[in-house]
Amino acid sequence: MTKPAPLWQNIRDTLYSEIAQGAWRAGARLPTEAALAQRFDVNRHTVRRALQSLADEGLVQARRGAGVFVLPAPLRYPIGARTRFRQNLLSAGRSPSRRLLHLARQAASAPEAQALGIARGAPVHIMEAISMADDLPISLARSCFCATRFPDLDTALRATGSVTAALAQMGISDYLRKSTRLTAQTADPVQARHLQISSGDMLILSEAINVDISGLPIEFGRSYFVGSRVELVLESDGPAPFVT
Amino acid sequence: MTKPAPLWQNIRDTLYSEIAQGAWRAGARLPTEAALAQRFDVNRHTVRRALQSLADEGLVQARRGAGVFVLPAPLRYPIGARTRFRQNLLSAGRSPSRRLLHLARQAASAPEAQALGIARGAPVHIMEAISMADDLPISLARSCFCATRFPDLDTALRATGSVTAALAQMGISDYLRKSTRLTAQTADPVQARHLQISSGDMLILSEAINVDISGLPIEFGRSYFVGSRVELVLESDGPAPFVT
Repeated sequence: MTKPAPLWQNIRDTLYSEIAQGAWRAGARLPTEAALAQRFDVNRHTVRRALQSLADEGLVQARRGAGVFVLPAPLRYPIGARTRFRQNLLSAGRSPSRRLLHLARQAASAPEAQALGIARGAPVHIMEAISMADDLPISLARSCFCATRFPDLDTALRATGSVTAALAQMGISDYLRKSTRLTAQTADPVQARHLQISSGDMLILSEAINVDISGLPIEFGRSYFVGSRVELVLESDGPAPFVT
Repeated sequence: MTKPAPLWQNIRDTLYSEIAQGAWRAGARLPTEAALAQRFDVNRHTVRRALQSLADEGLVQARRGAGVFVLPAPLRYPIGARTRFRQNLLSAGRSPSRRLLHLARQAASAPEAQALGIARGAPVHIMEAISMADDLPISLARSCFCATRFPDLDTALRATGSVTAALAQMGISDYLRKSTRLTAQTADPVQARHLQISSGDMLILSEAINVDISGLPIEFGRSYFVGSRVELVLESDGPAPFVT
């Protein structure tokens, strides 16, 4: 004896499908509660429950007095054996760009040295940049590379503005994601300003180690993704072709 | 010309290593700013900067008037081709347990049907449970299974309290993580009560699809992880042995 789905859920599912099929585009206003109640022949409370469920799923947002609006779908950002910022954004139909904030050569901190398998205090290149999709910031990225192995990487990073392109100039034609550590954080005022969000907004911190095809660490990256703009997607896309 | 690391960073790194090596256990109070300033022969401002950096990394927490305390390390929760709650916790040296909140047979919603590749409205088993590590809630999990394929799964879930064990009773000796979608959310009052956190605290929502070895979806799971208690770790642990 299967319980029938409650009325509000049927309405939620119908609106969910209609939004998915583009009946309303991002930014569009849904019909009023009254109009929906009439359409589905239910009371406003049932409509409200359905709309609340859509809001919980991040599909719509109620704006006081103005109505309920369809939210833009978050950027689908795959994390796999090969994780590439530009490729990810282009695949999502978004235009990738990076704004370089800081590029410096300094001594490796304890976590940086540990991640790269080098001595603490050894020289590293540090790059800080804002990653943008269609000019909207999606993450604040800090990358750390061994400056002994790649003395001229900073020049290449400045010239290309791309980690993949700069590493290619250093003879690294391919690199692989070895590990990614994800934690939740809130944005401090500086991060909020860079990312055009509010201080205290949610960030997903991704700490990643990329290795060359021989398995040697080449990049230790920290990216603070704007929680409301990005969804991180892990697909079982096959192994990295080396044994960890 | 490598810039030497600033003083505060050296102090941060030293304390970082000492905490990592267990010089202070979780819950222990660090020496006072004055004591640290004396130990490192620097002014309090430099010590404060180092402590702030440790706090940013989630290693310590300053408590007004009481001092700076070492925080417990978050639970390291690997997500890979085979993601198992019990195994993950045991590997982390924590004791796993689940509190069943709700087990029902109902009609599949649109997202559930899509994830499981079944018809909308088809019967599914829904299990809601609180996942705990050493009796501390770490996630609120909602699992959805096709009730046509596994008519008696609910009985097995109730009896074993374990998805893996229940599926084994249904003849599924192995299953694989096909995809995981991670987004950031804030806890609503009900979630907060279940998870023993505050409303508005950060959650990482993991929406996962597990498949059998032939690649057929068998579970659509939604887990709300407590951001402050868990770190999700993705290792390149090899492929799922099927082509997606």
